Amino acid sequence: MTNEIKREQNFPDWYQYIISTADMAENSPVRGCMIIKPWGYGIWEQIQSSLDKRIKETGHDNCYFPMLIPLHMFEKEAEHVDGFAKEMALVTHTRLKAKDDGSGLEIDGKLEEPLVIRPTSETVISEYFSKNIQSYRDLPLLINQWANVMRWEMRTRMFLRTSEFLWQEGHTAHASRECAEEETLKMLGVYRELMEEVMAIPVYIGKKSEDEKFPGAVDTYTCEAMMQDGKAVQMGTSHYLGTTFAKAENIQFQNDKGEMEYAHTTSWGVSTRLIGGLIMTHGDDLGLRVPPRIAPQQVVIVPILRDTEDDAKVMTYAQELTEKLMAQNYANSSIRVRLDKRLKDANDKRWEWVRKGTPIVIEIGPKDVEKNSVCYIRRDSENAKKAFMNIDAFVSGCADILSDIQKNMYYTAREWRDDNTVTDISDWEGFKKYFKKPAKFIKAGGPGFVLAPWSGDIDETNAKIKDMAVTIRCLPLDKQENISGNCVITGKPAKHMAIFGRSY
Amino acid sequence: MTNEIKREQNFPDWYQYIISTADMAENSPVRGCMIIKPWGYGIWEQIQSSLDKRIKETGHDNCYFPMLIPLHMFEKEAEHVDGFAKEMALVTHTRLKAKDDGSGLEIDGKLEEPLVIRPTSETVISEYFSKNIQSYRDLPLLINQWANVMRWEMRTRMFLRTSEFLWQEGHTAHASRECAEEETLKMLGVYRELMEEVMAIPVYIGKKSEDEKFPGAVDTYTCEAMMQDGKAVQMGTSHYLGTTFAKAENIQFQNDKGEMEYAHTTSWGVSTRLIGGLIMTHGDDLGLRVPPRIAPQQVVIVPILRDTEDDAKVMTYAQELTEKLMAQNYANSSIRVRLDKRLKDANDKRWEWVRKGTPIVIEIGPKDVEKNSVCYIRRDSENAKKAFMNIDAFVSGCADILSDIQKNMYYTAREWRDDNTVTDISDWEGFKKYFKKPAKFIKAGGPGFVLAPWSGDIDETNAKIKDMAVTIRCLPLDKQENISGNCVITGKPAKHMAIFGRSY
Repeated sequence: MTNEIKREQNFPDWYQYIISTADMAENSPVRGCMIIKPWGYGIWEQIQSSLDKRIKETGHDNCYFPMLIPLHMFEKEAEHVDGFAKEMALVTHTRLKAKDDGSGLEIDGKLEEPLVIRPTSETVISEYFSKNIQSYRDLPLLINQWANVMRWEMRTRMFLRTSEFLWQEGHTAHASRECAEEETLKMLGVYRELMEEVMAIPVYIGKKSEDEKFPGAVDTYTCEAMMQDGKAVQMGTSHYLGTTFAKAENIQFQNDKGEMEYAHTTSWGVSTRLIGGLIMTHGDDLGLRVPPRIAPQQVVIVPILRDTEDDAKVMTYAQELTEKLMAQNYANSSIRVRLDKRLKDANDKRWEWVRKGTPIVIEIGPKDVEKNSVCYIRRDSENAKKAFMNIDAFVSGCADILSDIQKNMYYTAREWRDDNTVTDISDWEGFKKYFKKPAKFIKAGGPGFVLAPWSGDIDETNAKIKDMAVTIRCLPLDKQENISGNCVITGKPAKHMAIFGRSY
Repeated sequence: MTNEIKREQNFPDWYQYIISTADMAENSPVRGCMIIKPWGYGIWEQIQSSLDKRIKETGHDNCYFPMLIPLHMFEKEAEHVDGFAKEMALVTHTRLKAKDDGSGLEIDGKLEEPLVIRPTSETVISEYFSKNIQSYRDLPLLINQWANVMRWEMRTRMFLRTSEFLWQEGHTAHASRECAEEETLKMLGVYRELMEEVMAIPVYIGKKSEDEKFPGAVDTYTCEAMMQDGKAVQMGTSHYLGTTFAKAENIQFQNDKGEMEYAHTTSWGVSTRLIGGLIMTHGDDLGLRVPPRIAPQQVVIVPILRDTEDDAKVMTYAQELTEKLMAQNYANSSIRVRLDKRLKDANDKRWEWVRKGTPIVIEIGPKDVEKNSVCYIRRDSENAKKAFMNIDAFVSGCADILSDIQKNMYYTAREWRDDNTVTDISDWEGFKKYFKKPAKFIKAGGPGFVLAPWSGDIDETNAKIKDMAVTIRCLPLDKQENISGNCVITGKPAKHMAIFGRSY
């Protein structure tokens, strides 16, 4: 076990500590890639199933595209798209052979053309669209893929930025700009719902400024969450791509007048990075806290066994409690309950589940059996303190408790985020002073976000804020009416409201 | 659209035709890799969710391991494991750069050590076990992974053998041989249940002969299905690995007496190959047939619209029928129903869904609205013929019809498989004569399987049967008692009962 690290001591070290203490992931033999362990992967599975349901309900079909893409397909993209990233894993050989001197294996079977491990499937899916779209009757074409992708990142951090990561990428083609823009915003809304209602993470949704857009996009929309050190995590993006990719890959359709037109496309994605955002939104000094709706186990029951006659009674009682709870419904499915029968000390097991962030941890000892009671810990309570309840009341009220934990986690995170979004800074001096503070755990004095009027002058703005490692996170969608006053950076008349902050 | 091809004309071409006519997959720009389209991927999702549930119910946790593995990790395996396959995709570079002459992109950023795209995760998971297992209290360690893997196959065929494929790989470690063997057989049973009860594909389960075992395994168990051309598809395997991998990777634990012991490990997997088996078990000359339990849509409703006043009534009726059916339960979930609103000809749409193998296809026209009736096609009926039913009776009986289709498909396949498993061939002459016939659609005269006594002499057997492209598929588990008689190949006293056949 790693030594305990508190948020205010060193926030980045605390982050790594949580991943290890909650047993979510570990480093792999390949730099920048990680092994996602059952608790981390279980959270990803819950996120996945919740989002996948929404993706299907909005009419998208899942597909699977090959992970290897011929090099030449990227040449087209490199021509069409400014800022095209080139850090990719390249396959050049297809065989291992024994070395002549018998000292191991070496590569063999050189390919004529190198193959790229997909950094995204944009290019192959565009080609697929081009082949599968002929008429306006084929539109909209709405597809999604769950897959692993790879970008050769230089600086990696578990979940937040890894060379290989898991994600979903939606790709759609439409007959008109309006339909494609509607789709882009619809999926942004789906993401917001996932993050706020399911992951209990409040997000600002807005448009990215010109310089922060996805290369090739007309508009990039984003969901930005504030971590406990005041830095932003871009949790998901949705792009309206106009006809950029349609022109590069010749995605044309015959409209109802018989004329050929280019399709308007969109793409949108979220990844295992969401789990990084979850840790830094909800973790505390005891460990992780997982909102009930995405907890792999919502309730864990730890029997206290002491090698005495009581053990059998305790196990029977715990088993019955498990079954009764599993028969209850929460958020449209049976409550996920685990009875932890492992041959380990009950105290250690209880703390293990608390550190993992299980919403409710129950301990059952002989006294609980006697009194027909349940001793439980709500993970959202201060210092994870124990409480007691009659067993029948607990069983029938369990779904309500989970529901209350979910709400409580969301509102706590939201209040905290709102409290640390400063709206009264009106000029450059105030701005400079605010971001003079280095990023750290906010309660220890770190800055949060600034919401302020902005002129829209990218270059002038960047020249002034980049030194402080501050960027424009987004132009929040619900704040763009009746803009007045002067730009907080340049002093010129404002055209937008913008959120400024440091970021991961 | 490809021209229709019948099974008896050319079975392999028919197979490709079904994949294209049911719109399941298409070739990708990279040789041997395929694009899995919504209908094909939807079937995989159903298989996945059905199997994943069973894998979790039997106590396994899902994890995710990196897709890239350093070359040196395979050197250990190459030493320990005979028959270790070396056809793998190798990553050697991590950057693209513009060519000096501006004519495109070239590779750059050479890695010190090449990385292998996982052909299986055996080696990384063994290393993980070695790190995460200390004491007998950590055992059994039961994990599973859903992932893409890559083997550089020379001859590929969609779903059946592709360079990249999707699969699940289970890996477990146990304290004793008995526990590991029990696990190996338990997961074989889970696979059998998936194949027979969910996919409606009857399988023989049995042990592989020595020469057909997984490299490094002590015992390999398999599920073998018979295709309509009499050839076998190995649908899934489960391996008891003894301490081979534990010794190679040093997976040791302290037992309850404080002594160090090697763990006994198992592994087991099924892949998108299952879909190849599905097509060749259930497809007919009209197209694919999908058993209800894994059909992405169990019922599809096609409204007949004629640009008349009736259209609104038809749509309302069809919409109400959709909702009523979705409120019904089949196999523990809501019936999966799609109302096909696409702007295409109703006749074309109906045939499209029939060719895809949708268990029930419904057509709604003005007459059905008048008569309160439903015109439906059961895909398991001969020539997909239309039938009529009162709408209320149909809604309340729909789950029963689906259940009946599921059973009917299984029993039809099973009867057919049993009829073509020959049990009365007793000597080499008869055997030779039976397999003289080339593999083709059985109804057009191809051979099936031979179940017969066998001596166990691998080399002598192979020397005689390999020329005919026949192999031992397995030694069926339920046929190994009271063996008598002589070996069908060698004439020596028999020790086993074996199933012989050609295979994919």
